[in-house]
Amino acid sequence: MADIVLTTFNWVPAFPRGYVRDLRIRWALEEAELPYHVEGMAFTADSKEHLSHQPFGQVPWITDGDLSIFESGAILLHLGEKSETLMSQNPVGRSETIQWLIAGLNSMEMASVPWSLYKFADDETMSPGREHLERFLGSRLQHLEAVLAKRDWLAGRFSIADILMCDILRLIDRFDALDAHPACRNYVERSTARPAFAKAHQDQLAHFAKAD
Amino acid sequence: MADIVLTTFNWVPAFPRGYVRDLRIRWALEEAELPYHVEGMAFTADSKEHLSHQPFGQVPWITDGDLSIFESGAILLHLGEKSETLMSQNPVGRSETIQWLIAGLNSMEMASVPWSLYKFADDETMSPGREHLERFLGSRLQHLEAVLAKRDWLAGRFSIADILMCDILRLIDRFDALDAHPACRNYVERSTARPAFAKAHQDQLAHFAKAD
Repeated sequence: MADIVLTTFNWVPAFPRGYVRDLRIRWALEEAELPYHVEGMAFTADSKEHLSHQPFGQVPWITDGDLSIFESGAILLHLGEKSETLMSQNPVGRSETIQWLIAGLNSMEMASVPWSLYKFADDETMSPGREHLERFLGSRLQHLEAVLAKRDWLAGRFSIADILMCDILRLIDRFDALDAHPACRNYVERSTARPAFAKAHQDQLAHFAKAD
Repeated sequence: MADIVLTTFNWVPAFPRGYVRDLRIRWALEEAELPYHVEGMAFTADSKEHLSHQPFGQVPWITDGDLSIFESGAILLHLGEKSETLMSQNPVGRSETIQWLIAGLNSMEMASVPWSLYKFADDETMSPGREHLERFLGSRLQHLEAVLAKRDWLAGRFSIADILMCDILRLIDRFDALDAHPACRNYVERSTARPAFAKAHQDQLAHFAKAD
């Protein structure tokens, strides 16, 4: 089996290190023990070659044989289809994994990433729209808290849905906004205690440090 | 084949009508000519029964035999796997459809829905975080514009990725923010001219009007 090739930036500033989305893919590849290697590209977006793989000028993308796949959610889904370690093959388990993966992308992260833009900017300005955005994240966290209070993993057992959701919650936790949500916080701790996370995280930090 | 059952609210206020996410599912079901019917539930979220199908207290969800599926993106993916009309079955076409579906959910809608919260609130307050949010959507639209200037459909031919992306762009267009993006605007016009869209849209309006 030929290696999966994971492409990310060669270098990023200190602040995003440990949070660049290639982490999600590294983590899944380590969990599944799939053969892969990482390639770096210059931290200048939007070359023609870059956009041919990732039309929004972001990272990561992978190539796997004939396929070139962008979007961390789509890559995780692809890896889930290759490895039962990452996604149950039975119809109910598979369906639950996919819906929770998509809930991570579209119910949680749609609230958390825009919210984080204000946090990164250290912007405390309140206005009606901003209040909607705060309540949007608050409501999603409250609903997720109720789910995670009753189960260890989102879809019956550890899966790509947990890799994604944990990484989404890590960004929220970075700004101390999980304090009122102990089940979410415990879930992040449980997930990041996995050896595959530790390896992926360490590898990402080393990858970027090499180019300093 | 037993009907797919699509559940949405019985009634919503005038403003969201024509934009509630069951529209995406109706549209896909009409394109694929799959047998289905629609059930309504009271517009009071978060009952135990509701949360057992949709843990964030939203609509829609579907049941299909043993499966209960929430998240419009996950439902579209499920329908795409049932119908070649909605998603190519060849590995490259399938992979492209999935990555563009997820790009809609996580690259475009993650920017557009939070942005729309300010529009709905008629909130013009500018601050550093808000400027990041505006640039976030602007950058995503600019990249998508370059893609849609060169192709009619996102993944080789019309698919679930277009149903989703078109519906995402409709919300942006509602606030006149596609004016500088003619390829995106033309794509919305091309997509909404399809008979299956017209049927789905009309059916959603009639469904909510019935309960007035």
